[in-house]
Amino acid sequence: MIDKKNIDLIFSKIDEYWSPHIVGELNGQYVKAAKFKGQFPMHHHENEDEMFLVVKGEIEIKFTEYTKPVREGEFIIIPKGVEHSPSSKEEAWVLLFEPAATLNTGNKQNEYTKQNLKTI
Amino acid sequence: MIDKKNIDLIFSKIDEYWSPHIVGELNGQYVKAAKFKGQFPMHHHENEDEMFLVVKGEIEIKFTEYTKPVREGEFIIIPKGVEHSPSSKEEAWVLLFEPAATLNTGNKQNEYTKQNLKTI
Repeated sequence: MIDKKNIDLIFSKIDEYWSPHIVGELNGQYVKAAKFKGQFPMHHHENEDEMFLVVKGEIEIKFTEYTKPVREGEFIIIPKGVEHSPSSKEEAWVLLFEPAATLNTGNKQNEYTKQNLKTI
Repeated sequence: MIDKKNIDLIFSKIDEYWSPHIVGELNGQYVKAAKFKGQFPMHHHENEDEMFLVVKGEIEIKFTEYTKPVREGEFIIIPKGVEHSPSSKEEAWVLLFEPAATLNTGNKQNEYTKQNLKTI
């Protein structure tokens, strides 16, 4: 039987910030869920566009020349190659859409890098 | 400047049921928005998985052997090849994620078929 997912239930299972969990897969893309709080390092993805859909709270995306707030019920698509640094003052819940191969820190390897993501 | 999209604003611009509008593009996939009301014909997509994210209201997906309700704040991924017929008793707002090439009626051509989708 084909299963559905509930967004609130997904986020109730995530207890760490900046830790994307896989919550769906389609056409070689992953749907991921992550809780944001604080500032994430600037990075870009060489070959992957990335979508952030804010389902709770408010985030900011810092680009090299400006900053864009993205509020609950809004989404933004970051084209490949574009430097960006997401942040959130308070806890925010974000659904991500990106190719399965996408690394969360893009072209950087640092203490935020997550590999072998958990599936919820 | 990279633009964000507001889901409420998107749906305020859609005045027809079963008419997907393009609201984003990434990695060869489209994000589409559609208002559902009534019953949509049974069909399948030969090569494309399809995700329905319900942002308002409640829909049902009828498969050949069972029916699955998908409520506000839930999503479902229909694998390619699987026959399905979405419906909604009241107006529902749905975000769709699928390859750019996906036709709304899949393997069928009928009065519900939409081509040359508008972009919002």
